Amino acid sequence: MSRSPEPRRRVVDVPDLVARARAGQVRAVARLLSLVETDSPHLREAMTLLAPHTGRAQVVGMTGAPGVGKSTSTSALVSALRAAGRTVGVLAVDPSSPFSGGALLGDRIRMESHTGDAGVLVRSMASRGHLGGLSAATPQAVRVLDAAGFDVVLVETVGVGQSEVEVAGLADTTVVLLAPGMGDGIQAAKAGILEVGDLYVVNKADADGAGRLRRELRGALSMAEREPGVWEPPVLSTVASRGEGVAEVLAALEEHRAWAEASGALARRRLARARAEIEAVAVAELRRRWTGLGGAGHLDDLAAAVAAGEQPVHAAVDVLLEAVDGAGPPAGSD
Amino acid sequence: MSRSPEPRRRVVDVPDLVARARAGQVRAVARLLSLVETDSPHLREAMTLLAPHTGRAQVVGMTGAPGVGKSTSTSALVSALRAAGRTVGVLAVDPSSPFSGGALLGDRIRMESHTGDAGVLVRSMASRGHLGGLSAATPQAVRVLDAAGFDVVLVETVGVGQSEVEVAGLADTTVVLLAPGMGDGIQAAKAGILEVGDLYVVNKADADGAGRLRRELRGALSMAEREPGVWEPPVLSTVASRGEGVAEVLAALEEHRAWAEASGALARRRLARARAEIEAVAVAELRRRWTGLGGAGHLDDLAAAVAAGEQPVHAAVDVLLEAVDGAGPPAGSD
Repeated sequence: MSRSPEPRRRVVDVPDLVARARAGQVRAVARLLSLVETDSPHLREAMTLLAPHTGRAQVVGMTGAPGVGKSTSTSALVSALRAAGRTVGVLAVDPSSPFSGGALLGDRIRMESHTGDAGVLVRSMASRGHLGGLSAATPQAVRVLDAAGFDVVLVETVGVGQSEVEVAGLADTTVVLLAPGMGDGIQAAKAGILEVGDLYVVNKADADGAGRLRRELRGALSMAEREPGVWEPPVLSTVASRGEGVAEVLAALEEHRAWAEASGALARRRLARARAEIEAVAVAELRRRWTGLGGAGHLDDLAAAVAAGEQPVHAAVDVLLEAVDGAGPPAGSD
Repeated sequence: MSRSPEPRRRVVDVPDLVARARAGQVRAVARLLSLVETDSPHLREAMTLLAPHTGRAQVVGMTGAPGVGKSTSTSALVSALRAAGRTVGVLAVDPSSPFSGGALLGDRIRMESHTGDAGVLVRSMASRGHLGGLSAATPQAVRVLDAAGFDVVLVETVGVGQSEVEVAGLADTTVVLLAPGMGDGIQAAKAGILEVGDLYVVNKADADGAGRLRRELRGALSMAEREPGVWEPPVLSTVASRGEGVAEVLAALEEHRAWAEASGALARRRLARARAEIEAVAVAELRRRWTGLGGAGHLDDLAAAVAAGEQPVHAAVDVLLEAVDGAGPPAGSD
């Protein structure tokens, strides 16, 4: 798991790049996002220069199982936001291909209706180059778009797994998309989405089973444990392909944002996001350190001993962390 | 994010527990799995005692989107394995509810047809207590079932996100389940499943669109980048609810296992699994260390500074890792 090379090796003038991104140059923004995606050695400098300019954008997470119409819904929401005069950066976080591939054509082309609109930037982002994974790459990419001045940053996560739900859940407002025919309420609950949504949107609301899904969802949400007096997530309906119901989603986003700001929930959410980001970047840094280790701390040698049953995993971790620490204490011996 | 307490605090005689689990006592196995799930302080001792007895079980991963019939397929496969005289431990890894819930009723009851069969143990496992997440908890739980003598350990992951695909992909053999009507080929590819499967099973093969799904899948697989001369993943068909096609899945599992053993792929896969496990346990240990930190390295203070844009994330990581290390070097300053 060696560090991924950048697509093109060249001297990067990071302060210039940051200045151009802040001036609204799309190519500079895209280049900064590439630094994030590949976990570039220049990332530290870029993030340091960007940090003071962040915190202004509204960060909206959008998640849901494959097939619910996330791409169409994102596109419809972008249109509505643009009509309201707001600029939008879209991050389509693609957890696929930790193994080989890359972002698929579908994501790259689907937003073409917004091509040529300088108020919209769409970026498919994979995390394969980033040792900290989605949890490190996504908040850093959000930071880039935030500092570049986009009013809204829309983080669309493909997939319904733990890491995607967590990533979406760290937004200021999280929209969970569902559609009829994609599995029943229990299946939806399995993906942990009942705790994470601030808004629930039943897309394809004109299809068979939409009414039943809404009822099941409302029933399940009413049973979910929530602190008293907090935000009650509404269940909305859309037919995103025709733009129906999108204005209501926009209104609910505004309403949630206002509530979150007034209640202190926004500050708490952003604190949690920063904590998760620090942890993820720290993990990436440690992975980098131990990947470079030789001798007794070499990860492959340790893995061979663990795989053979010759060394318990915790003992291997002791060796690894001691080698990383230098003269640090052994790991959690009890 | 403090360490989760065990369900019941009591003195645990770990060597006795391990001895009883190895003698086939289901309750002892279940107790060991609870130690894993809650990341118990006794886990280190348990894993150390279990390590020498591992490596015998065939580890089969099963993954697929919600609604494809994973539960039914797992149950049918368990029946077929039992008929072939093999004992089976099933881990239903449930990534839901990092936020509150727990494993849902569905998982707990769905395998009731195997109740009373001592050759089958089914366990729904959430990772919410484990600081290393699924990546640390799952291999440790596999180790428990392996050492307890189950011939086959079936790891069923709910969800199609990155972490679940990775967990399933670390099995000796990975089965990817699909079903017609759950989204097209591109959607399937998005979840990264085209690189991870050793067998592809189209379930609900009697439903509309099954033929088309098989064709799309075969087409997509033929385009996937694979090293020449390696295993060509077959695309099989089942109607798991009626047990149709399950014998063929079993045969393909055996075939893949034989190929993997002869080709060295099995050893490589197990090495990768051990490496991932070491990394995940190391991350858990570091999380534990920095969660306990006070002073300048306190994670919440650092997060507040990062959230406010007052401190760049990399600088916060430096502070955190220096505090964890004691006198260690600053993190990756460049």
